[in-house]
Amino acid sequence: MNNKQSAYQQLQSHFNKIGELENIAEIARWDEATMMPQGSGEARGKSLATLSGVIHKLKTETQIEEWLLGSESDNSLDPWEQANVFEIRRIFDECSAIPVDLTEKLEVRSFQSEQAWRKYRSDNDWDSMCPLLSELVELVREKAQILGDIKKKGPYDALLDQYEPGVTSESIEREFDKLKRFLPGFLEEVLQLQERNRPVPLAGPFEIAKQKELGIELMTSMGFDFDKGRLDVSHHPFCGGTPDDTRITTRYNEDSFEESLMGIIHETGHALYEQGLPAPWRNQPVGLARSIAMHESQSLLMEMQACRSAEFLTFLTPFIQEKFGADSGGANGQLSAQNIQLLYRKVEKGLIRVDADEVTYPLHVILRFEIECDLIEGKIEVQDIPGIWDQKMSEYLGVNTEGNYQDGCLQDVHWPSGLFGYFPSYTIGAMTAAQLFRTATHSDLSIMSSLAVGDFMPLVAWLKKNIHSRGSSTSFNQLLIDATGEKLNSDHFINHIKARYQPPQ
Amino acid sequence: MNNKQSAYQQLQSHFNKIGELENIAEIARWDEATMMPQGSGEARGKSLATLSGVIHKLKTETQIEEWLLGSESDNSLDPWEQANVFEIRRIFDECSAIPVDLTEKLEVRSFQSEQAWRKYRSDNDWDSMCPLLSELVELVREKAQILGDIKKKGPYDALLDQYEPGVTSESIEREFDKLKRFLPGFLEEVLQLQERNRPVPLAGPFEIAKQKELGIELMTSMGFDFDKGRLDVSHHPFCGGTPDDTRITTRYNEDSFEESLMGIIHETGHALYEQGLPAPWRNQPVGLARSIAMHESQSLLMEMQACRSAEFLTFLTPFIQEKFGADSGGANGQLSAQNIQLLYRKVEKGLIRVDADEVTYPLHVILRFEIECDLIEGKIEVQDIPGIWDQKMSEYLGVNTEGNYQDGCLQDVHWPSGLFGYFPSYTIGAMTAAQLFRTATHSDLSIMSSLAVGDFMPLVAWLKKNIHSRGSSTSFNQLLIDATGEKLNSDHFINHIKARYQPPQ
Repeated sequence: MNNKQSAYQQLQSHFNKIGELENIAEIARWDEATMMPQGSGEARGKSLATLSGVIHKLKTETQIEEWLLGSESDNSLDPWEQANVFEIRRIFDECSAIPVDLTEKLEVRSFQSEQAWRKYRSDNDWDSMCPLLSELVELVREKAQILGDIKKKGPYDALLDQYEPGVTSESIEREFDKLKRFLPGFLEEVLQLQERNRPVPLAGPFEIAKQKELGIELMTSMGFDFDKGRLDVSHHPFCGGTPDDTRITTRYNEDSFEESLMGIIHETGHALYEQGLPAPWRNQPVGLARSIAMHESQSLLMEMQACRSAEFLTFLTPFIQEKFGADSGGANGQLSAQNIQLLYRKVEKGLIRVDADEVTYPLHVILRFEIECDLIEGKIEVQDIPGIWDQKMSEYLGVNTEGNYQDGCLQDVHWPSGLFGYFPSYTIGAMTAAQLFRTATHSDLSIMSSLAVGDFMPLVAWLKKNIHSRGSSTSFNQLLIDATGEKLNSDHFINHIKARYQPPQ
Repeated sequence: MNNKQSAYQQLQSHFNKIGELENIAEIARWDEATMMPQGSGEARGKSLATLSGVIHKLKTETQIEEWLLGSESDNSLDPWEQANVFEIRRIFDECSAIPVDLTEKLEVRSFQSEQAWRKYRSDNDWDSMCPLLSELVELVREKAQILGDIKKKGPYDALLDQYEPGVTSESIEREFDKLKRFLPGFLEEVLQLQERNRPVPLAGPFEIAKQKELGIELMTSMGFDFDKGRLDVSHHPFCGGTPDDTRITTRYNEDSFEESLMGIIHETGHALYEQGLPAPWRNQPVGLARSIAMHESQSLLMEMQACRSAEFLTFLTPFIQEKFGADSGGANGQLSAQNIQLLYRKVEKGLIRVDADEVTYPLHVILRFEIECDLIEGKIEVQDIPGIWDQKMSEYLGVNTEGNYQDGCLQDVHWPSGLFGYFPSYTIGAMTAAQLFRTATHSDLSIMSSLAVGDFMPLVAWLKKNIHSRGSSTSFNQLLIDATGEKLNSDHFINHIKARYQPPQ
């Protein structure tokens, strides 16, 4: 064996170290959301910031450039190694491009603005929030300009590229336009149809211990590996941890199991992606999940495509009845198969994105995408947001948000915390989920018949082979083409929505 | 303000960063013992080792020497800053002295030997363990020699100094000799006395939820800050986390509340020390707990001195009766005040250190101290251990361990994991606890009368003022002299044992 490590080996060993530190940071963040006592937040925040600083410094060490150049001209690398070098180049260039003082200013301003937002949102106080957000947007524009220069992209696309490498706003716009043309009209049809057949609302109590039991049974059926993962409770459900220690959370409400159950299924979708990532590439950039949208596609595929299918809900209902039938919850037909299906497919016009159903959700995202695009490109300013928000909410969803900032443009934490270019990922995820599920169920007919008897294995095997095990070995676009034969196409999402919500002809 | 940071300011800021990273490592270690799923151990071990490596590198950065020299000649520093510089000098010299390859060899060998020990202990296989331990001891001797050279101490004292800075084996021997002369004879007297009056053993079930409730009530009375701390379950009880996020654990057994209750009290003693450390010196070496023995003194003071006092047990008994009286546990007088006291003061000759009572415990420690001292000094070799162990167990405790390695010299994890010089801290802690408690209760008479009504506040206030809030601002010896007027003196421990266990004259 050669004693001298090749440039690539040094690069891989350096990023292994980074990956291991990121694993520790992930566990500390999970702990913060689930276990940490309230009074320890300030100290934890400082410790996590210090660890992030250490990791950032490691990612921008000057030696990396040398190792990268050596690796990029090394013909002996196999395709995974090459893909790893490609990912490291992207990370290194991105992290190195932003001057340290801009990074620090952004961190400080984002933190201040997010803290202020918690108060101003609950006070419905746009006037106080607006100047803080304006200052933050100035810094984000500066960052976007710098990233755009090195990536040879427009400023908004440069931000987007951080979350969805290789995806452009042009391609997003093309698919979002199809949704914009279809959804508002379709929504009115669905609402009319649902008016005639409304579900009986769930009325608990539904014992939380039983909700948890059912959740764990579902996770187990879905293939979640409890030997390398956990289920806990947090205020905002999430999937955290690492591929070797994947931790999902949910929240329980005694009055209804609706949210905890689908929440667990959603987060398990994320977790299966993490647990299915290629083990030989642990801690390397090429071994990580492809993108935010691809991650969201895995959770939405489970929640929206697989588990709200008539086949699966029909299978699930007897288990719900068995768990909760003896409680008061068993009364007045609320646990009938028909009612469960009506509940899990209820469509409503609402003000809040996170409460939206799958028909209205894309419209919430498109509105944000359009605003943040214009904002970063300098076509509008922060003070213009409420007016545009009102006008678009009225146009897309027919609801009025005038003067209601807290349920309007102040509802999300993203912008106050400096996240611009992130929102599209939610709906790219939903479209991807529909496209993947369509291909999967058409290429393997046993997937739907198995779901109808509560067996997720054929579906999970397909996802593991086509998505999970491929990590970041190729681009989002190529991954989707390899899996489905075509690039992102919102027709599949539209067809899914039509098939599920349109009246039978 | 001067734009240029002084050498001291740079030093402090550097060690603040180190402290913050150590906080994250502490939480990750707590998680490993309490929350981590079983299959994630290997990945976690690697990540923690990487973080330790990062911290070690930061502690040995060459710039530190320059900052230290600048700080050591800086007359403007206040006493706490000076003490901080003193502590940092100690850490830096210690960490820098050991060559990187020796550190790595020690880590690898310790890990291998500890893993092997888990198997060989349960197999009672000394012959397989002996060569591994011998190799490890060679490396530890090498390290002890290097540390001794820089510290101007003998090799064993150099190791001891890592855990008990400034404490020498000579001073330990002097106090241990008094214990050795007193305890074996006294033990026989106590055993004879207890023979006549044996406790009824507890017979559960004692509901675990109620044991936990009572534990939390005790922690609250003792002043544990749940806004910055938690109570959980782990296989081996411990106190972990950080001063701003202090986490203790216990283990429950349905058959008896004896262990969980005193275990919680013990760990809360540790936790109060952490929570009482000087907040302005967070993350700085001077703001840390003084030493392992001082930490143990705080847990033993609570467990052995305060909570096994007749005053406190008399107060506690009605609460125990109230919690568990309705269970089967209420039968046959097992929960009477007299029986509770007998249970919590039972003395027994046993083979196992961690199961020992306060009368026999020091003998277990003295035996180990004597062996490890001779081993590090090269007066004996690893293969001599079992013979010496048998002979000393027979001499000190009158028990026979011949051929029973698993309950003899293979019972502790310390040596197989490379920890030599650590055992004395347990008994230094016990002696310190007796000395502190004696001074506290004599200088403030309200301490005992308050304990008699379950009020810990006068005691905790005394400890906080005299020990906790002083961090590492002075040496162990000086801290003890300042608090009690004299250096470590085992007479107080002996007097405590006599008063508690001797027949009334």
